[in-house]
Amino acid sequence: MRSDGRDRGELRPMAVVLNPNKYAEGSVQIEMGDTKVLVTATVEERVPPFLKGQGKGWVTAEYAMLPRATHSRNQRESVKGKQVGRTMEIQRLIGRALRSVVNLEALGERTITLDCDVLQADGGTRTTSITGAFIALALAVHKLAGTHAFAKYPLTDYLASVSVGVLGDAALLDLNYAEDSKAKVDMNVVMTGAGAFVEVQGTGEEQPFTRAELDAMLALAESGIARLIELQKQALGEAGARIGTVRT
Amino acid sequence: MRSDGRDRGELRPMAVVLNPNKYAEGSVQIEMGDTKVLVTATVEERVPPFLKGQGKGWVTAEYAMLPRATHSRNQRESVKGKQVGRTMEIQRLIGRALRSVVNLEALGERTITLDCDVLQADGGTRTTSITGAFIALALAVHKLAGTHAFAKYPLTDYLASVSVGVLGDAALLDLNYAEDSKAKVDMNVVMTGAGAFVEVQGTGEEQPFTRAELDAMLALAESGIARLIELQKQALGEAGARIGTVRT
Amino acid sequence: MRSDGRDRGELRPMAVVLNPNKYAEGSVQIEMGDTKVLVTATVEERVPPFLKGQGKGWVTAEYAMLPRATHSRNQRESVKGKQVGRTMEIQRLIGRALRSVVNLEALGERTITLDCDVLQADGGTRTTSITGAFIALALAVHKLAGTHAFAKYPLTDYLASVSVGVLGDAALLDLNYAEDSKAKVDMNVVMTGAGAFVEVQGTGEEQPFTRAELDAMLALAESGIARLIELQKQALGEAGARIGTVRT
Amino acid sequence: MRSDGRDRGELRPMAVVLNPNKYAEGSVQIEMGDTKVLVTATVEERVPPFLKGQGKGWVTAEYAMLPRATHSRNQRESVKGKQVGRTMEIQRLIGRALRSVVNLEALGERTITLDCDVLQADGGTRTTSITGAFIALALAVHKLAGTHAFAKYPLTDYLASVSVGVLGDAALLDLNYAEDSKAKVDMNVVMTGAGAFVEVQGTGEEQPFTRAELDAMLALAESGIARLIELQKQALGEAGARIGTVRT
Amino acid sequence: MRSDGRDRGELRPMAVVLNPNKYAEGSVQIEMGDTKVLVTATVEERVPPFLKGQGKGWVTAEYAMLPRATHSRNQRESVKGKQVGRTMEIQRLIGRALRSVVNLEALGERTITLDCDVLQADGGTRTTSITGAFIALALAVHKLAGTHAFAKYPLTDYLASVSVGVLGDAALLDLNYAEDSKAKVDMNVVMTGAGAFVEVQGTGEEQPFTRAELDAMLALAESGIARLIELQKQALGEAGARIGTVRT
Amino acid sequence: MRSDGRDRGELRPMAVVLNPNKYAEGSVQIEMGDTKVLVTATVEERVPPFLKGQGKGWVTAEYAMLPRATHSRNQRESVKGKQVGRTMEIQRLIGRALRSVVNLEALGERTITLDCDVLQADGGTRTTSITGAFIALALAVHKLAGTHAFAKYPLTDYLASVSVGVLGDAALLDLNYAEDSKAKVDMNVVMTGAGAFVEVQGTGEEQPFTRAELDAMLALAESGIARLIELQKQALGEAGARIGTVRT
Repeated sequence: MRSDGRDRGELRPMAVVLNPNKYAEGSVQIEMGDTKVLVTATVEERVPPFLKGQGKGWVTAEYAMLPRATHSRNQRESVKGKQVGRTMEIQRLIGRALRSVVNLEALGERTITLDCDVLQADGGTRTTSITGAFIALALAVHKLAGTHAFAKYPLTDYLASVSVGVLGDAALLDLNYAEDSKAKVDMNVVMTGAGAFVEVQGTGEEQPFTRAELDAMLALAESGIARLIELQKQALGEAGARIGTVRT
Repeated sequence: MRSDGRDRGELRPMAVVLNPNKYAEGSVQIEMGDTKVLVTATVEERVPPFLKGQGKGWVTAEYAMLPRATHSRNQRESVKGKQVGRTMEIQRLIGRALRSVVNLEALGERTITLDCDVLQADGGTRTTSITGAFIALALAVHKLAGTHAFAKYPLTDYLASVSVGVLGDAALLDLNYAEDSKAKVDMNVVMTGAGAFVEVQGTGEEQPFTRAELDAMLALAESGIARLIELQKQALGEAGARIGTVRT
Repeated sequence: MRSDGRDRGELRPMAVVLNPNKYAEGSVQIEMGDTKVLVTATVEERVPPFLKGQGKGWVTAEYAMLPRATHSRNQRESVKGKQVGRTMEIQRLIGRALRSVVNLEALGERTITLDCDVLQADGGTRTTSITGAFIALALAVHKLAGTHAFAKYPLTDYLASVSVGVLGDAALLDLNYAEDSKAKVDMNVVMTGAGAFVEVQGTGEEQPFTRAELDAMLALAESGIARLIELQKQALGEAGARIGTVRT
Repeated sequence: MRSDGRDRGELRPMAVVLNPNKYAEGSVQIEMGDTKVLVTATVEERVPPFLKGQGKGWVTAEYAMLPRATHSRNQRESVKGKQVGRTMEIQRLIGRALRSVVNLEALGERTITLDCDVLQADGGTRTTSITGAFIALALAVHKLAGTHAFAKYPLTDYLASVSVGVLGDAALLDLNYAEDSKAKVDMNVVMTGAGAFVEVQGTGEEQPFTRAELDAMLALAESGIARLIELQKQALGEAGARIGTVRT
Repeated sequence: MRSDGRDRGELRPMAVVLNPNKYAEGSVQIEMGDTKVLVTATVEERVPPFLKGQGKGWVTAEYAMLPRATHSRNQRESVKGKQVGRTMEIQRLIGRALRSVVNLEALGERTITLDCDVLQADGGTRTTSITGAFIALALAVHKLAGTHAFAKYPLTDYLASVSVGVLGDAALLDLNYAEDSKAKVDMNVVMTGAGAFVEVQGTGEEQPFTRAELDAMLALAESGIARLIELQKQALGEAGARIGTVRT
Repeated sequence: MRSDGRDRGELRPMAVVLNPNKYAEGSVQIEMGDTKVLVTATVEERVPPFLKGQGKGWVTAEYAMLPRATHSRNQRESVKGKQVGRTMEIQRLIGRALRSVVNLEALGERTITLDCDVLQADGGTRTTSITGAFIALALAVHKLAGTHAFAKYPLTDYLASVSVGVLGDAALLDLNYAEDSKAKVDMNVVMTGAGAFVEVQGTGEEQPFTRAELDAMLALAESGIARLIELQKQALGEAGARIGTVRT
């Protein structure tokens, strides 16, 4: 049994508050255990230069941690004068993952930016950001749909993410920080509501891993993500009703 | 009467949640109306280079707004590659104001950093940050006092801040964003529990102001800050009991 | 009596050389005692992006100190790779103050940039910059008026600035560096020729100040600025004759 | 059949020149088809601050492309003033992968930096960099072993990397640029000589992928990497003889 | 006699490989002894802002060294966040020198960028870059001439460069690193096929030099550059046939 | 005859004010015609890291132009966030030139920094900076010698600099901006009091130059610098008496 009493394949409690921000087109505060992320979705009626005039939209993400989101204080990236490699890696992952369930033509020439700001970090901040960013994105698209008649609904499926790892001999689901720092393998998985893989990122820096371990982790991820998507559906309710209704 | 029904000399509702962050030595989420700021206090057992070996501590602050804290999204300063002038001006003000009620010798060779992150902005973010940062600082010093017997208590007084302005012919207390953007004069005032001034910053960019207007604004600020300090005392309770007990 | 023999309410000797720079549309070298600032006004027939197409002009300022303007050498901001907080705070103040006496519609779609470069610093560099920048601005507008028939003259009033402070029990006018570094309160005041306040910035970092001290400082500032504006009028002569002739 | 005539599971021709650089402790020019990478290994007798005094060494990597390594010219990162997200992501991957087969205690307090500079890019630059960097690292450690008697040999196993993807319905090994830009899934795999996984990074931005596709790609990667490691063994000859001789 | 057996006025062996890069419009790998530089020429159908609409083209250069091009490793400029002074000085020199033999009107509104990347450095990297960049430029212009009928050929003459210096009492041609680091004077000379000077840059930081020494160095440079231009002609063959055929 | 009535070999009027800055260890305001440079020398009792513990000192320079030193306003380098290539090139030249007449061992472990700030530019700012920086350096060393008994005097000779060029068929001395912008060749020469060359930098970007033109320019430079050094001797008087008295 795990230090917080969970089973190997058990998620931490997930909590969401919808639209805590009064300005954003969609927002959510999501918590997985003690990991807390505030996500806002901003809709702007323009696209990046590389997409101009193509009739397509764009979905992108930014990620940051507040200085004291962690045990000890981290220097702000604005003070460092740049975003560090870890930040860029994570926000590229979030944006890429979200775009896999967006029909950019259906969205039209607009950009949705998902800002994922980690208020408190206890492991799994990138996977929690993805799961939450999908909710904020869904709220923003639902709001857009109120004033704009989409021929095809721009969201083609649900999307969520979770971390899995190997600690000792056991594959574990949804590692907290204490588990993550002791794990020999750490893997982040993103999947759709249809059960397809969007991202699989496994790292065995401390120790390479076997095919059997890989398979065990993938199985935990599949069941964990299925549960997260159920929770997203409950949270979104009506706001998620049209997701995937017309597939591209 | 004002658009939100307040009298000229009436504060917006203030709400505080103490210690929302599980890692920080002290923290507070403070709200003045729709302006919401999360402040964490971090205690580190070292001082900046210019203070080394002098037996004194340091108190400093950093300030930032989440990208969608405002009506439209602002680019992150980490993406710009630097903090803008407004940010630097504000965080210098917060740090300077807090130090006016700290006995740095009594604090000893340690640094307390107050991170003020604006989750949602509706006017008065710098004054709300100061009022909240004092609370987080007080919580951190109170926690320090639990393991460290201070001969003199490092906090010499309470401290709070409010904005005042002139809109049309009327001086107003605690302007929200809509009022602030129409005011011809905008002034931020910081005062101590003893009723002394720490900062007075008035700006008549749109239109210069008279001595009578200045006096009217100062009077509103005095009463507003007195009320804020009462609220701080209620919120801190026992944690604020030793503030100012030995004055330097 | 003060170390340099002045009375409490006495300015340091002010000296100005008009148009020392052969390229600028207006320029001045201004000295208040040993504080020496070279100010140039540059007129450009364009406005910043946020003002395009509004029929309005813009007035802005930049401030810098030469590396050895002070007792010990400071690293250049171009070597640091950015302007520090103090610089940004000061140049924002100078620009804001000047704009309070400019009718931007009357100026038309052009930008005037005031570059304030401190050749030698002995206290009061920001206030001396403002007093000098007004002169350079007036020279540039006067020159513009020679080729351009302004319906309304773009300058609505004179403008000058001085520092005041409290040292021991005494309020002092126009502090030099030695006095400034010992003062418990430091206040910068900007006023118009009509005697209205444009900026009041008082800071009691070392020690909070009372309302009585605030009033004493304001009184000194009012008389000091009135005297500075007399000196500006003498220096500008004909070049200042139309200032404020048509008030917006 | 593929545009260059290869079978689905066939690598591009690999060519290596050992030690083309006369200064580096180890170096290799490696080519996989038209992708050409110059890798140098630099040994320095110091470790990063976070490792000081722990008796352990460090292995790290940097990655860059020459401006005209690609079809159109890219701006230099030194001109941009920073490394972009893609660069950081790749060099973090290379360093992490290499460290998985290094016994840092056995290496002792020294740092080996692998500089991977892409002279020409035709797909698979990150995987080619890893395969080449391992060779340069092996040459450097072999050279070190000539003057330093390692109790345990610091390299615990061989290491190589390859890309796999799904194009149409077919899983393909070692994609060139033309294939990569059309693939719906792109996966990079790093494995050891013992056949264990070190990194698995699969991305289905264009289209999510199924478990069957994932398994097909993993199978191709396993056989491709096994072949690459044979080629590494041939290239290194005696210089690789002690790799993995004492396992930690 | 010199450490590598050369006479005072003898060049190191020069080797060139034409068009090693499959994407660039022209490229060369040039070696002078152990100094190895890869130069690519990129042709783009646009000009910098300051030349827009003037019917003229532009030729510019960038220069960099791989981190381990030298005895000890140098930090990448992309990691430093900027190009250092030496780099800027060298790339400005290369661009300026090349433009002296280009008829920018004849070239038309296009830009040719010469990227000079030093793979290995053993003295004379800037002069070798110039000699090689001329070859890459000539290849690119020759290729352009295949699809574009130039009324005047854009290259007005050949161009090459060499270093000379004084070591002890002797003037030496084409110094290697060991010689360069002991020389009291170091001079870089750029000349045209017609024997005219384009750049003369002599530096006597360690010790000033006499007019006689200056003359001796210039004489060596003249003969050395004449020889380099012969080698350029052999290497370019037909691709150089039209150079200087119509002089502006 | 030239536009300002000078002969080909005639300098512009030179004017110097010694020690205009009350803080610097040595300073000068130097004017060559309308080119005006303020130079301060700062002495610090430390050396750069690469010289620590070698018993040697260091002399270095920084160069900048005020934004409106020229016909149109230039953006500050602090706003750009970096020093541009031209600035770096010039300040490297100034420092290198000065060090050629400094005995760094005799100077001892201290650094002298020459800040050259161009107040107004009319051609020849780098050469005027060198001529002025030598004066400020001499004043600082003379002041040091008042409190420190140098066994050998650290300055081994006088040093000055001038520009020469070819305009039409004529070689000209000390070009002003109007001449410089029309010249086909531009050369900067630095020489010592003994008549030796320290730097020779000639550039024929517009048009290559012949050996005869080079010789004519060098002859003008020799006579011009000899005259500048006479003027330096008059200006320095006693403060220059020990220069070169003990030669290393």
